[in-house]
Amino acid sequence: MLTVLGLEEAKKLAKEKFKELLNSYDDIDSASALGRVLFEDISSAEDVPGFSRSTVDGYAVRACDTYGSSNSIPAILECKGEILMGDKAEGALEGGDCYKISTGGMLPQGADAALMVEDSQDLGDGLIYGVKPVAPGENTALKGDDVKSGEIFLKKHTLLTAKEIGALAATGIEKVRVFKKPTVAIISTGDELIKPKEKPGPGEVRDVNGRLLAAAVTESGGVPLFLGIIKDDRLAIEGAIKEALEKADMLLISGGSSAGERDMTVDIIGSLGEVFMHGLALKPGKPTIMGAVDSKPVIGLPGHPVAAFFVYKELVETIILNMTGAKLVPRVISAKLTTNYPSNHGREEIVPVKLSDDLSFAQPLFIMSGLITLLAEADGYIKIPRDNEGFEKGKLVDIRLF
Amino acid sequence: MLTVLGLEEAKKLAKEKFKELLNSYDDIDSASALGRVLFEDISSAEDVPGFSRSTVDGYAVRACDTYGSSNSIPAILECKGEILMGDKAEGALEGGDCYKISTGGMLPQGADAALMVEDSQDLGDGLIYGVKPVAPGENTALKGDDVKSGEIFLKKHTLLTAKEIGALAATGIEKVRVFKKPTVAIISTGDELIKPKEKPGPGEVRDVNGRLLAAAVTESGGVPLFLGIIKDDRLAIEGAIKEALEKADMLLISGGSSAGERDMTVDIIGSLGEVFMHGLALKPGKPTIMGAVDSKPVIGLPGHPVAAFFVYKELVETIILNMTGAKLVPRVISAKLTTNYPSNHGREEIVPVKLSDDLSFAQPLFIMSGLITLLAEADGYIKIPRDNEGFEKGKLVDIRLF
Repeated sequence: MLTVLGLEEAKKLAKEKFKELLNSYDDIDSASALGRVLFEDISSAEDVPGFSRSTVDGYAVRACDTYGSSNSIPAILECKGEILMGDKAEGALEGGDCYKISTGGMLPQGADAALMVEDSQDLGDGLIYGVKPVAPGENTALKGDDVKSGEIFLKKHTLLTAKEIGALAATGIEKVRVFKKPTVAIISTGDELIKPKEKPGPGEVRDVNGRLLAAAVTESGGVPLFLGIIKDDRLAIEGAIKEALEKADMLLISGGSSAGERDMTVDIIGSLGEVFMHGLALKPGKPTIMGAVDSKPVIGLPGHPVAAFFVYKELVETIILNMTGAKLVPRVISAKLTTNYPSNHGREEIVPVKLSDDLSFAQPLFIMSGLITLLAEADGYIKIPRDNEGFEKGKLVDIRLF
Repeated sequence: MLTVLGLEEAKKLAKEKFKELLNSYDDIDSASALGRVLFEDISSAEDVPGFSRSTVDGYAVRACDTYGSSNSIPAILECKGEILMGDKAEGALEGGDCYKISTGGMLPQGADAALMVEDSQDLGDGLIYGVKPVAPGENTALKGDDVKSGEIFLKKHTLLTAKEIGALAATGIEKVRVFKKPTVAIISTGDELIKPKEKPGPGEVRDVNGRLLAAAVTESGGVPLFLGIIKDDRLAIEGAIKEALEKADMLLISGGSSAGERDMTVDIIGSLGEVFMHGLALKPGKPTIMGAVDSKPVIGLPGHPVAAFFVYKELVETIILNMTGAKLVPRVISAKLTTNYPSNHGREEIVPVKLSDDLSFAQPLFIMSGLITLLAEADGYIKIPRDNEGFEKGKLVDIRLF
């Protein structure tokens, strides 16, 4: 029961235990799919563009009619008319002909290139003088150049950002199947806790983790469900865990800062389901529990907000992203430490840092795990390995940005 | 009227012309302020924590009673009771006394440190044997350690993420004043455009920019207002621009891919207000217009979605962020180019790249500006300066991630 793991071991275990746990989807409008993650590959039902187009303002031509042309020996082309935007190019182009065309205009049959207006002269006599040769295909986007009918252009697990929303619009795909957002229940436990809006008496503190974790779950693409503050009472906690797992896909239960309370939470999770890990070799973050009830992840987080936040970032977020279907894209930059940072705890250590304006220097923040306002100053954090005695001033370190 | 600018000049001009344009705020609940930007500095009305606390499970002590203690000569302390979580620590600690205490428990009067339970022995005789000295303040968080009454802990222009939401909860601040989200109107123009749900006939293309830009505005923290597709007609465009600026704080008008239409858009903006820039020395992105009507920014974007997207990322986003109050935090990483990329256009060039899985290599995507589905594959982009002939394979380049 007393299985203490290092962070990497814990992540690996979480990946094994909670892989594709919530394999469920929603079918939604593409126009409102920003921030969602594709549940399936997307292929186009048609060629895009649907017709060959000019990519310049100028003249639709047969490339071979321009070969060898120059300022001194221009290609002389007969202008047969103008192709208007949005119009179907009627009539076919024959040898020596051209059509005036705008960027995006449809190439007429027979044309295989476009001559830029800058490379032509129009003397007003119905003839166009081309002064530069163009190759077949030059200055055009051909039918199907962007995507061909049947071709997959967005893969499962793709996060839909502005450019993917644009690609869906271009191909006329109006509905997409996306991963369902996991509902993550949040419970704060502790006899000392009061609501943030209340004024604490002696010995009382406001519940920070409820809102902190709800905001973090939202940032990760989940739907938070805060079930309130529960007193340190076995029946109350057990009832809250059962309620949470009826309503949600996962549970974060934070608090239990005292040893007795932590043990009680572990006991309850064990009696309702299974405990995989009891203790994380991470500073801060030691009193972390990982288990499952009814195959749903149940994570016991430290009561201290800063510790809860870092365990969330390192362990919980990866589990939620597994459920949202998204890939974790690390936001990591390198910078030099501004000062020595000693570390010698037998545990991997997380140290928040503040970056200089030019992002080249990182100032470690000597933070105690209770100090949430100091954390707000941090731009990211570094990790010092378990058996390392700390980092020296000037060392180039990898910083995970928040 | 024909003022062509480079990208950096255009950004500088935008900064001058549109600085603190929308200096307006909302007062909202802190609990639902995730993603908003502070309009004012935030200070605490009280000390946090509001009382001195133990940060370990163990015993509240006077540090001086533990000096010199060791395994062979333990400090012998009389345990006067236990301080429960959330309780006010009554009675004061006198010389030689200790109280049992949990992590987060309130230190009683007279105690100035906490002895970890691991560094003590309890033989059940009412006496506690301390085997390690503690210094004053050790293993405690003192009243006001996190933030002191009156102290500013969050500055104006701070983006409220999970950790800031947590800091607001810790200090009991239930309402915050945040920057108003700018409303950004979007108009697509072009006789060739149809709605994404429609099936294009010959010469017709779906409007991509409407949804692409609406999604991008949302990502930047603005509120998009898409006013639809407008035909290339002077009165129609003029009417749409006027309507847009009645309803919104800024306007993005995209399209005008033909030279004639671009000129018409410039004329209309000039007649209603002022045009600062007509043409951007950027590939893709040349047909970009920057102006203002009624002091509101009006940006004419290229009709090609990929070009519109990059101009948005480089120029428009900075203007919107000026209005949202947020600071642009660049997401830039370095990687090596996998191949040569020639560039010689007399314009700064933007090249989308795809990163290798380990983020160390960047593959340039040779993309024509119309090809939106190819863009979806890109992870970010590089910029090649105006007078550079291109980058060589293996060069370490800075990549702006999407």
